[in-house]
Amino acid sequence: MKRKKKKPFVMLTNDDGITSPGLYALYQIFQNHYEVVVVAPATEMSAVGHAITLSDPLRVFDHYRQGEFYGYAVKGTPADCVKIGYWAILKRKPDIVISGINIGPNTGINTIYSGTVSAATEGAILNIPSFAISLGTFQNPDFTYAAKFARKLADRLLREGLPEGVFLNVNVPACREKDIRGVAVTRQGSAQYREEFDKRIDPHGRVYYWLTGQKLNKETSVDYDDGAVDRNMVSVTPVHYDLTCYEFIDTLKQWKIE
Amino acid sequence: MKRKKKKPFVMLTNDDGITSPGLYALYQIFQNHYEVVVVAPATEMSAVGHAITLSDPLRVFDHYRQGEFYGYAVKGTPADCVKIGYWAILKRKPDIVISGINIGPNTGINTIYSGTVSAATEGAILNIPSFAISLGTFQNPDFTYAAKFARKLADRLLREGLPEGVFLNVNVPACREKDIRGVAVTRQGSAQYREEFDKRIDPHGRVYYWLTGQKLNKETSVDYDDGAVDRNMVSVTPVHYDLTCYEFIDTLKQWKIE
Repeated sequence: MKRKKKKPFVMLTNDDGITSPGLYALYQIFQNHYEVVVVAPATEMSAVGHAITLSDPLRVFDHYRQGEFYGYAVKGTPADCVKIGYWAILKRKPDIVISGINIGPNTGINTIYSGTVSAATEGAILNIPSFAISLGTFQNPDFTYAAKFARKLADRLLREGLPEGVFLNVNVPACREKDIRGVAVTRQGSAQYREEFDKRIDPHGRVYYWLTGQKLNKETSVDYDDGAVDRNMVSVTPVHYDLTCYEFIDTLKQWKIE
Repeated sequence: MKRKKKKPFVMLTNDDGITSPGLYALYQIFQNHYEVVVVAPATEMSAVGHAITLSDPLRVFDHYRQGEFYGYAVKGTPADCVKIGYWAILKRKPDIVISGINIGPNTGINTIYSGTVSAATEGAILNIPSFAISLGTFQNPDFTYAAKFARKLADRLLREGLPEGVFLNVNVPACREKDIRGVAVTRQGSAQYREEFDKRIDPHGRVYYWLTGQKLNKETSVDYDDGAVDRNMVSVTPVHYDLTCYEFIDTLKQWKIE
């Protein structure tokens, strides 16, 4: 009798919420070959950055999809989901954490606002190979290719591992699969935003603002996340959560602040 | 007649909210020598990470303290405050952005969860010299020394400037001023947390969890933020918001992901 190989164990999460089709696309492609557990925010949590919930209690609910148990819905942030999944819900440590598939890109400065990325960060903090994956469109997203890529990348990460504290931020262009021009290993773009606050008056005569913004001077080189995606390449950026700017330490020491 | 020198213009913010005594300590020490504007969250916003408000409108209220105009209270996050301050409220660009004084340290991994730090990040994104400043205690905080340090550091930053995209994360130990043993230029600590989710039952019989955690194996060297503060030194960490892990780019390229 051939011994059955144990399936790898993947924790899936996101920031668009547990009902997101991007999360379900991952669920579908992994469910036959991996043991899958979904731990995702009960509601949409975009642009929450790396928030964690300290001042409110966290609640967890079983979530059903078409009558079947689908996963755990957490009334909290993406980072909360990975933390509570690991420390309170799961019986064993996941082999890999995947966050996504996000609807909309997480490139350049948006990396730091991204709940999708923050969940993968939590995976890395727990020393689990992790990646965030986002699709570069907000309209009519087709997750087919991005999900296939996620599966391939997960297999690879399980074989290769990642250095401590390092994880991957993946951005998939929204073009047709046959137009994808390969994979680029990139750095985080540094394009700036011109923010606009759209000032309005509510029906009660009070002022309010909507934040809108426009990315300026995006890098066009494939060495940058934005540039790669714009050229129909999958962008894979190795990222970490050590914010230290090492290059500036020596100069700052010479300031002799007292 | 001697021409009066124009005062430097400082934007103050925080994540403890506009009524925080830590913010007021900064206000008091800067108000005679700087032109000061306060743009701070209307309510406490700790551990919000780098959240920005996209799905709700932002509102801004004039905030009075002892009958006098004190600043702008924003129903949003620390990052929102700096953005809306710069793009919609202020008439001119601040010369410096200071976020704090936070009640409690922002060292090690907490740097990435910190609303205080995220506000200084926004300052850096706008190419304004910026720093976050936190006091290493939650009990009976005395901001006197930290405020004096903030003032000295601000003067210095105005003279020296900072490289593009770089800002400072300052942590002041909570000891008496005479016990402070100087200033250490540090890196972000990498101590891990053991998280505990305290599981409870509410009066209606439903389960909820409180996140609590304990820092393990803190670095003791003064080269790390935690180590410096533990030795009664002011920790100054140069940080940036480029999350790219450059050291891993070449290895990842060799994976030849397709």
